Amino acid sequence: MSAVYGYGDIKLFAGSGSLELAKEISDYLGVPLESYDLIQFPNENLFVRLLGSIRGQDVYLIQSMCSPVHQNLMEMLITIDCLKRDSAGRITAVFPYMAYARSDKKDQPRVPISARLVADMIEVAGTDRYVTIDLHAGQIQGFFSIPGDVLTAFHILSDYFLEKGLEDAVVATADLGFAKKGRNFAAKLGVPLAFVEKRRGNADPRAKATTVIGDVSGKDVILVDDEVLSAGTMSEAVKIVKDHGARDVYLSFTHALLVPPFTENLKDLPIKEIVTTNTVPIPPEKRLPNMTILSVAPLLGEVILRAHEGRSVGELFNE
Amino acid sequence: MSAVYGYGDIKLFAGSGSLELAKEISDYLGVPLESYDLIQFPNENLFVRLLGSIRGQDVYLIQSMCSPVHQNLMEMLITIDCLKRDSAGRITAVFPYMAYARSDKKDQPRVPISARLVADMIEVAGTDRYVTIDLHAGQIQGFFSIPGDVLTAFHILSDYFLEKGLEDAVVATADLGFAKKGRNFAAKLGVPLAFVEKRRGNADPRAKATTVIGDVSGKDVILVDDEVLSAGTMSEAVKIVKDHGARDVYLSFTHALLVPPFTENLKDLPIKEIVTTNTVPIPPEKRLPNMTILSVAPLLGEVILRAHEGRSVGELFNE
Amino acid sequence: MSAVYGYGDIKLFAGSGSLELAKEISDYLGVPLESYDLIQFPNENLFVRLLGSIRGQDVYLIQSMCSPVHQNLMEMLITIDCLKRDSAGRITAVFPYMAYARSDKKDQPRVPISARLVADMIEVAGTDRYVTIDLHAGQIQGFFSIPGDVLTAFHILSDYFLEKGLEDAVVATADLGFAKKGRNFAAKLGVPLAFVEKRRGNADPRAKATTVIGDVSGKDVILVDDEVLSAGTMSEAVKIVKDHGARDVYLSFTHALLVPPFTENLKDLPIKEIVTTNTVPIPPEKRLPNMTILSVAPLLGEVILRAHEGRSVGELFNE
Amino acid sequence: MSAVYGYGDIKLFAGSGSLELAKEISDYLGVPLESYDLIQFPNENLFVRLLGSIRGQDVYLIQSMCSPVHQNLMEMLITIDCLKRDSAGRITAVFPYMAYARSDKKDQPRVPISARLVADMIEVAGTDRYVTIDLHAGQIQGFFSIPGDVLTAFHILSDYFLEKGLEDAVVATADLGFAKKGRNFAAKLGVPLAFVEKRRGNADPRAKATTVIGDVSGKDVILVDDEVLSAGTMSEAVKIVKDHGARDVYLSFTHALLVPPFTENLKDLPIKEIVTTNTVPIPPEKRLPNMTILSVAPLLGEVILRAHEGRSVGELFNE
Amino acid sequence: MSAVYGYGDIKLFAGSGSLELAKEISDYLGVPLESYDLIQFPNENLFVRLLGSIRGQDVYLIQSMCSPVHQNLMEMLITIDCLKRDSAGRITAVFPYMAYARSDKKDQPRVPISARLVADMIEVAGTDRYVTIDLHAGQIQGFFSIPGDVLTAFHILSDYFLEKGLEDAVVATADLGFAKKGRNFAAKLGVPLAFVEKRRGNADPRAKATTVIGDVSGKDVILVDDEVLSAGTMSEAVKIVKDHGARDVYLSFTHALLVPPFTENLKDLPIKEIVTTNTVPIPPEKRLPNMTILSVAPLLGEVILRAHEGRSVGELFNE
Amino acid sequence: MSAVYGYGDIKLFAGSGSLELAKEISDYLGVPLESYDLIQFPNENLFVRLLGSIRGQDVYLIQSMCSPVHQNLMEMLITIDCLKRDSAGRITAVFPYMAYARSDKKDQPRVPISARLVADMIEVAGTDRYVTIDLHAGQIQGFFSIPGDVLTAFHILSDYFLEKGLEDAVVATADLGFAKKGRNFAAKLGVPLAFVEKRRGNADPRAKATTVIGDVSGKDVILVDDEVLSAGTMSEAVKIVKDHGARDVYLSFTHALLVPPFTENLKDLPIKEIVTTNTVPIPPEKRLPNMTILSVAPLLGEVILRAHEGRSVGELFNE
Repeated sequence: MSAVYGYGDIKLFAGSGSLELAKEISDYLGVPLESYDLIQFPNENLFVRLLGSIRGQDVYLIQSMCSPVHQNLMEMLITIDCLKRDSAGRITAVFPYMAYARSDKKDQPRVPISARLVADMIEVAGTDRYVTIDLHAGQIQGFFSIPGDVLTAFHILSDYFLEKGLEDAVVATADLGFAKKGRNFAAKLGVPLAFVEKRRGNADPRAKATTVIGDVSGKDVILVDDEVLSAGTMSEAVKIVKDHGARDVYLSFTHALLVPPFTENLKDLPIKEIVTTNTVPIPPEKRLPNMTILSVAPLLGEVILRAHEGRSVGELFNE
Repeated sequence: MSAVYGYGDIKLFAGSGSLELAKEISDYLGVPLESYDLIQFPNENLFVRLLGSIRGQDVYLIQSMCSPVHQNLMEMLITIDCLKRDSAGRITAVFPYMAYARSDKKDQPRVPISARLVADMIEVAGTDRYVTIDLHAGQIQGFFSIPGDVLTAFHILSDYFLEKGLEDAVVATADLGFAKKGRNFAAKLGVPLAFVEKRRGNADPRAKATTVIGDVSGKDVILVDDEVLSAGTMSEAVKIVKDHGARDVYLSFTHALLVPPFTENLKDLPIKEIVTTNTVPIPPEKRLPNMTILSVAPLLGEVILRAHEGRSVGELFNE
Repeated sequence: MSAVYGYGDIKLFAGSGSLELAKEISDYLGVPLESYDLIQFPNENLFVRLLGSIRGQDVYLIQSMCSPVHQNLMEMLITIDCLKRDSAGRITAVFPYMAYARSDKKDQPRVPISARLVADMIEVAGTDRYVTIDLHAGQIQGFFSIPGDVLTAFHILSDYFLEKGLEDAVVATADLGFAKKGRNFAAKLGVPLAFVEKRRGNADPRAKATTVIGDVSGKDVILVDDEVLSAGTMSEAVKIVKDHGARDVYLSFTHALLVPPFTENLKDLPIKEIVTTNTVPIPPEKRLPNMTILSVAPLLGEVILRAHEGRSVGELFNE
Repeated sequence: MSAVYGYGDIKLFAGSGSLELAKEISDYLGVPLESYDLIQFPNENLFVRLLGSIRGQDVYLIQSMCSPVHQNLMEMLITIDCLKRDSAGRITAVFPYMAYARSDKKDQPRVPISARLVADMIEVAGTDRYVTIDLHAGQIQGFFSIPGDVLTAFHILSDYFLEKGLEDAVVATADLGFAKKGRNFAAKLGVPLAFVEKRRGNADPRAKATTVIGDVSGKDVILVDDEVLSAGTMSEAVKIVKDHGARDVYLSFTHALLVPPFTENLKDLPIKEIVTTNTVPIPPEKRLPNMTILSVAPLLGEVILRAHEGRSVGELFNE
Repeated sequence: MSAVYGYGDIKLFAGSGSLELAKEISDYLGVPLESYDLIQFPNENLFVRLLGSIRGQDVYLIQSMCSPVHQNLMEMLITIDCLKRDSAGRITAVFPYMAYARSDKKDQPRVPISARLVADMIEVAGTDRYVTIDLHAGQIQGFFSIPGDVLTAFHILSDYFLEKGLEDAVVATADLGFAKKGRNFAAKLGVPLAFVEKRRGNADPRAKATTVIGDVSGKDVILVDDEVLSAGTMSEAVKIVKDHGARDVYLSFTHALLVPPFTENLKDLPIKEIVTTNTVPIPPEKRLPNMTILSVAPLLGEVILRAHEGRSVGELFNE
Repeated sequence: MSAVYGYGDIKLFAGSGSLELAKEISDYLGVPLESYDLIQFPNENLFVRLLGSIRGQDVYLIQSMCSPVHQNLMEMLITIDCLKRDSAGRITAVFPYMAYARSDKKDQPRVPISARLVADMIEVAGTDRYVTIDLHAGQIQGFFSIPGDVLTAFHILSDYFLEKGLEDAVVATADLGFAKKGRNFAAKLGVPLAFVEKRRGNADPRAKATTVIGDVSGKDVILVDDEVLSAGTMSEAVKIVKDHGARDVYLSFTHALLVPPFTENLKDLPIKEIVTTNTVPIPPEKRLPNMTILSVAPLLGEVILRAHEGRSVGELFNE
């Protein structure tokens, strides 16, 4: 893998939040992971020490901003500072999942836009480029002034369902902010679209009425979203589409954060299959029996390779 | 109107794109518009010359980024440079409509994010704060690192319909990216929600099928959006909801850009009423008989006053 | 044309303001122009979409800031944002003519310095380097903090007159701010220098007296300037030097903006020849019979080639 | 407490890391703490919502960067982003203890300078000024380009010992990087200085020899430092000065981080008294019987008051 | 002198390059000069220590960038850093003479634009605004992105000559770059304009021919320029206008740098009067018998007062 | 020496402050020094003109910030501006000695942090990287946001003493801020450590008592420091260790500024040998008979070579 455009050789660093994924990418590329010391002092402060020089090299740090979120974020920034001060040729931060992406606008007065803050922190640390997957909103790319490749697991997930060959299916989404991406999913599968809408009551704000807009009766329903936390919304959606006569129900989402009590929320529900990816590491105890985890490693590996060689990554891009 | 927090007195400047609106704001505040020279040289270059000093004052430039878009944008930037170099105390750019707001993400490879570029241009010119209304996406606020007040005409428009007291109505949107805001509109009116979905055919990409998701039959339909250009999508939506048995049809949107052939698209349609605002000036020849134009001047005037006096504008804020 | 210093290959983009010139440069270099989509939406907003990847490449965007000035400027900035976000190796903005260059100082209170604003806009968009020709004032180069090559058409124009072999000529300028460059022109031709001075009357500020300083009687006069708009000043200068006994009169200037009513101003005047360049495209209807248009394409092509290969462009530089 | 210099009124915000200290400061100033929502979502992301407007006000956020370090740091940054976007007049970050301050230089190759990174993060979030106490190295103030008041608990601690009136004492330090500050402590008390030096053996790097430089025999020894973690070094120092004949031994330090196993390290040692401050909250279970905790609240309160009123804080400054 | 716009009170600091001028300004304003320590260590490094707090105040540092140029420049920057770090409310650098202003463009390849560098240094040190007099080129104001007041001594000098009531005079300039300002001078006095042109010979580049363009015979000649160093050009100009029959010859310029051998160059020439200002201190040994030094202190004092009070300084501005 | 990582070839420039050192580095590398014009005008302003193009090259400017300090600093900055504007590929400022490094913190109120200012000036001029030796405090590296190699002469100096094979020696330092580095020196030599402490009297602040902490009796004493100016402190230290029975006394320090009256201070003292380096040029008249000057040229040459080739310089790094 020779240096083509003046950035030296590919150097891969695996952050604590993406150890396995980085290993897969390393295998895909045939490029070893760099060894380095990562120490946490008794006062919680992190410390990084490279074991070899990366002067003038094309460095990729793979670090998902998953739990522990703030520590993983800080680890990424400190490592980038370290790489910068050791005169790396180019530093690309590869974070398959970006934390704080849901804090992307002021939808009420006097709140922060934390995603912009995170983008600024990444830039001020000395990052030259970034790679990420399925940002909560595409606009977040505009929070960065540095170039980046915002990829999507859309093709990985939708191809999986295409191969499955469901007959008489419908794509549904329970988040109206995801309506447009849901539509694209439905369009690719060539099936109709439906919505699950939850609305606060005017009389009693605590009461919420959940309805289905569109037709799901007698159909396989694929509930799509970008990220699932405790699966509270998802479990409600499963119930209501079932109430409306849905046949099999599938869940499809990119980022499997799966925080408690997602197991309780999902385990007794009639869900045929949960299809997700490894942008966030899913430890064994979180892997439900009906869960299929598709790997984004080939996607990331290919993008790193093409970015290094100055070739197009357009066809792998965000929908 | 005394100087409260060290920014001097309110000074109002009316840009070419908001002459009438600025006059209304001036009337609301009881603060006169500043006189200044705006010259366009034969080489199209614009030139600004203030006729009085604004040193240390709290300056508000009101300038919608409407047609001619690029000239109005440049006029705003040049005026801000001029205000900055004359040592204004604080400069607030008030642009009720922000151009390029729809170029807010890379939804395909190798395209710009022009809205971030515009935000950067506004900042680099020396703007301290900004005020705008109904950004195409709330995330655009994150494109700015300076503080701003992103207001909404949502209350102005929805209050108008509340007073109208429609019975058995439904709110519909033809843009899935507007689904969430449509939901809020429906929730405020206490009516159901529907969607008009247009999808490219898999067989023939030029063919598009338009469908209605949700029930509109026998109901008054309020079609909502943030901005209307040539009204092509809107006219299709009107037809299809009528085809699905809608009773009266209303249009409601904030930014009335109304570029040709909007008249042709809308004039023969059975539209009961078009309700919009004056964030963009609507010249007499564009004012259709069934058009109601609500003014945002009291909203902007009140925000300017509160910003000047250091009081809360939260309750006037973006939904 | 191989990549020499780590910036990949030359990629040429032709902006709307320099389509023909870019074609000439492409021919000079033997490097094809890149195809890309440039769309203007009904709301006037521009949109750019690259049709191929330019990752890591040495990109040159050729775009004169001519009419429509603000649209061409914005097109340049949007294209640069697009190139940056697609991870170009190096982006050079080649604008043979820079708009707003005459707004380069505060020669009266409370005016902007728009040329600095334009420079900042170019930088904030993500430009790495720039190339331009005959800035109105050399100091404008200091408005940029990025490197740039400010070239001159001085040699192209003066060589043309040298070859012409005028006997007993004099170089004159009607703009005292151009006096030094006029001197250089005269020195290169080995002829004397004269000035046309226009001064407001003390008694009646509207009355202006025009005089000639220096001797033009019986001589060929070459009136030189950097840029001609409506030719009002030039036509007055032609008349007064003729009144003072000038033989043949020539006009020589780099930037032929030629805005109305330049035809009326110039057509009936006894001008032997108008010598200019194609830094600004001159459509057929503006080409007067006695007009000679010299091409700057070889100059720009050579500079692009040398910049790409890391070779000196000093001898092609601004005088 | 009227607004004196154009920054509005003092508004105090208590971050999670300084709840009690902020309350003390509030009491000192007679200014109430602002109420606001701080929420942690299931995905660990923090969210801040102000409950009242702080437009144009002089805001002080008091937040020690203690455990959980990364969460407290991020909470501070998000709150500042929130305050900035709500148009605060001036934002002062008051962090009595700065995390990562020991990562202030590259004392070996290929390591970060995390303290500079933290300073940059604080600035990029929108902080106007900062106040802190006893930075690990005074040079860290130079990591900031914004103004700040770096205070010291030196006077609080040394005055305490002066009042105690020890006879025949000596000040000792076990960290040679603290030698100069130790000298100042000794000078203020008018007593001699000694050093505890720990050095790796040349033969066996794991073996370390600890020696005392200077005379401690028969004297009361005050061991001084800026920050104590697990007290490993301190406990060794106590033992060796005791071995060298020290009479009573005192510990004096500003930042009581006290991470495990500090109790084990200290509890059986013959330490007369541990004197520290509340820059970091010390929960009851960490308070040893012989520990005296002096409050920095009056110092911080006084500095906030003077900063607000534009008066000198010089005499409270870093030694 | 009360604080009007939130910047506190005027605080005047006199730098080493403007001790007397600052005293005059202090007298004009009735505001005392602040005392502070300025120390030069044996290693030449300068050190500044304020003796009182300037928190939140409106600070003006008066420091001409005269000889020793680099030391005075550095002194200014260090003092500004000191003022910034002590939380000054607003810092205005008042440098009546700006060094390096003649290095304002690349008039040959591979040279710096040092004036932009100096502007950047002033900004990066923390300056909020600047005040200067008669920049070598007006465009240099565009090198700054902070606001500034670029004043002119033009009125002081031209009024002096108006009062003198010369009959049958002519204004001449020996620097073609000063032609436009020379024209303004002539226009104000209502007299003609002439030029002294020096040109390198084409045959022998070392030989230079000096000529007069325009008519000076039998007239009083006022030779004008912005700055005089060793007066080499000026002395040549005096000789040649005398050769062309000039009656009395006057010199008029703003910045009297007067470096050796200006005395030798000027002393035996038939110069009626040298009229200059005190933007640069002129020590007694440089004061020639026929030299008139007009003070810029009232101009600077008035501008400081108006800037502080937020009033217009337009009429005192650069011509 | 081929271009490896896209920065072209090594180009060496020798600044006025390092003419001889640069020559030695040139010899070490076998790379010639570039010729260029450096002119000082009568108004003291410096001017640089490159004689050949350095476009896209890997440029190293070697310039110690020694006397005349401010002129040498400005020369460095101007040259960097010149290199940047000529489109150098990468610019590395190599300043073996950094002026103002002792002004690195506010150890009293209302003083500047001039070292941060100098770092900012170096960055704003356009420097990409820097190389320096033995910064007064390691933290100063954190004043830079650009990468840099902070080297040390520690190994050069300590190896010299190791080879000397002193028996029964002790390392002593007279500056408590240098205690840690003194310990490292002692550790490398395997000898004990001692301190010379000077303290102001409490009763009479002018009176200072100097004492020795640790044992020097009958031992060879190596007094170490980073920089020696007039040697006042050093000479006192020599006397007191002699008073305490020291055998031979050696001085060892990196930066030999040696300002008057260092000769008077040192010449009659019983100093066995003064060991220093050529980071600052030492003219013949300053070279004392017992002075040994070790060259840092091989160290700097090797670092330049490795930086150019993208290889590790870790083992040459700051201790």
